[in-house]
Amino acid sequence: MKIDVVNHIFPKVYFDKMVEVLPSGKDMHKRVRAIPCIVDLDERFRIMDMFDEYVQVICLGAPPIEAFGPPPISTEMARIANDGMAELVNKYPERFPGFIASLPMNDPEGLLKEAQRAIKELGAVGVQVFSNVNGRPLDKPETMPLFDLMADFDLPILLHPARGADFPDYKSETKSHYEIWWTFGWPYETSVAMAHLVFAGLFDRHPDIKIITHHLGGMVPYFEGRVGPGWDQLGTRTSDVDYTQLLKSLKKRPYDYFKMFYGDTAVFGSMPATKCGLAFFGVDHVLFGSDSPFDPERGSAYIRWTIEIIERLDITPEERHAIFEGNARRLFKLKS
Amino acid sequence: MKIDVVNHIFPKVYFDKMVEVLPSGKDMHKRVRAIPCIVDLDERFRIMDMFDEYVQVICLGAPPIEAFGPPPISTEMARIANDGMAELVNKYPERFPGFIASLPMNDPEGLLKEAQRAIKELGAVGVQVFSNVNGRPLDKPETMPLFDLMADFDLPILLHPARGADFPDYKSETKSHYEIWWTFGWPYETSVAMAHLVFAGLFDRHPDIKIITHHLGGMVPYFEGRVGPGWDQLGTRTSDVDYTQLLKSLKKRPYDYFKMFYGDTAVFGSMPATKCGLAFFGVDHVLFGSDSPFDPERGSAYIRWTIEIIERLDITPEERHAIFEGNARRLFKLKS
Repeated sequence: MKIDVVNHIFPKVYFDKMVEVLPSGKDMHKRVRAIPCIVDLDERFRIMDMFDEYVQVICLGAPPIEAFGPPPISTEMARIANDGMAELVNKYPERFPGFIASLPMNDPEGLLKEAQRAIKELGAVGVQVFSNVNGRPLDKPETMPLFDLMADFDLPILLHPARGADFPDYKSETKSHYEIWWTFGWPYETSVAMAHLVFAGLFDRHPDIKIITHHLGGMVPYFEGRVGPGWDQLGTRTSDVDYTQLLKSLKKRPYDYFKMFYGDTAVFGSMPATKCGLAFFGVDHVLFGSDSPFDPERGSAYIRWTIEIIERLDITPEERHAIFEGNARRLFKLKS
Repeated sequence: MKIDVVNHIFPKVYFDKMVEVLPSGKDMHKRVRAIPCIVDLDERFRIMDMFDEYVQVICLGAPPIEAFGPPPISTEMARIANDGMAELVNKYPERFPGFIASLPMNDPEGLLKEAQRAIKELGAVGVQVFSNVNGRPLDKPETMPLFDLMADFDLPILLHPARGADFPDYKSETKSHYEIWWTFGWPYETSVAMAHLVFAGLFDRHPDIKIITHHLGGMVPYFEGRVGPGWDQLGTRTSDVDYTQLLKSLKKRPYDYFKMFYGDTAVFGSMPATKCGLAFFGVDHVLFGSDSPFDPERGSAYIRWTIEIIERLDITPEERHAIFEGNARRLFKLKS
């Protein structure tokens, strides 16, 4: 079986609410006309049926819940989303073996309550967070308790990139053009978020926490030389802060913590990138994820390309099984 | 022979001027104490002698010339730098087969004059530009003529990342911590600059232009899936700009232009990244560059690691020769 752990869907009830709440609600209709299967289940199943023994652990797509507005707006949107997701999983268990909960990350109390409700009452198998909360790093007192909670549950956190509604850099002339914020900005944001979590000491507190980074670890695998020997020299490029103490306060090299993340395979058809990411994280830390349906074929291309690459990788059948299915079952605690 | 085409040096006369001009001049002394060979030639030659048949095409390190101030300050700094570099090459031709000129990128007329002077009078074999000019993209009327000039000379432009003195994002809480601006920000900036040049139609105007991107193409090889199928969908994520016309105005897919760049091998000891980058650019577009001396051994580690990786790559002797020497001789027009 192939368990696609990163793909995006909008439950109908959530989508309707998005259109109602968002100032750019009409854009949402345009988006869905462009990629019907993000809402339309018949179209989704038609695409899924192109692939043998293919199922999806489903999660929402961007925008992040917190982009809808302050609580209680965000809190309510998360409830609607998670109820809608649970309904899909209950109705189509043979298609969707589980769902990833969405959280109102701008509501410090509400996000913990909703995570508990989604997991305990609705059966969510993990939660999704974006790489920043409306521009705020994740390692703040308002959001860090979620990581403690998920470590207690021993369930994964999916780390999805976010443009960040009020990030100043995307308004600058240099970055806003040509959708650079998407092509390079998103993997960059993922990497930035990973660094914040590492240097906050998260992995010393929770060595077994499971954080699945989108797009095979952002920039980390390709720049392991910067993450490794580069960050061993943390502080040599800074004159206003002394990072010596920070390095000493960590139990391991910064590099070693980055290997404790997990990565999904959503690199959109690149075999060299897949090999590079797999070499970095190792087979046990890589999960099949397609990022469907945002591809040139409106849903099928990224799934097909990603499956083809994993099937062509020069690894053992056991290793291939781990990437396609085993790691997902282990991390999300899915029944066989 | 191994021709290291990306490594950094400060000619003594330029270094002394830096200390005098920069508000943070004292930091420069600290930096040189930490890495003596960036100025000290005896120490530099001691390190170079660790490697067989190893020579360096030399260039300055950060900060960019334009960071020193508006013209005529920047213009004068470039002259001092280039005169100092030419002196080194003339005095030690067996060590330094050529130098890369630095330019006052904030002086539209002066930068063209200095490029011509450096190449015609001083024998520079290429020029270095940073990924932005104090925050301005490179595809502006003030700087784009340099690319035309270098295409006429048929000599390379080294594209080095820059933090950008006034980039707003580095002042934000999310990005300024932990030297993220260096680890991930620099390769991100390189990638952003590449995108600006591609979408400005540079490669349609100058199909043979040689732009050598630092750190093996920034993020491009690892994210070729985003650059490729991602950017084939340019415009689908944007509601305020119509990018359809832009795509139509280009002769090729965006992806194809990114393959027209060159990359240096400065990934600091990562074999998987080297393979990934080499697969993307191809052997003829990859040049041996170490980024010495900014490594944990103060100059020798990045050279040694990079040589070891190139020697271990599963490629033919001719291909290895191209990466170590042949491509450099061809692009920089060095005598054998």
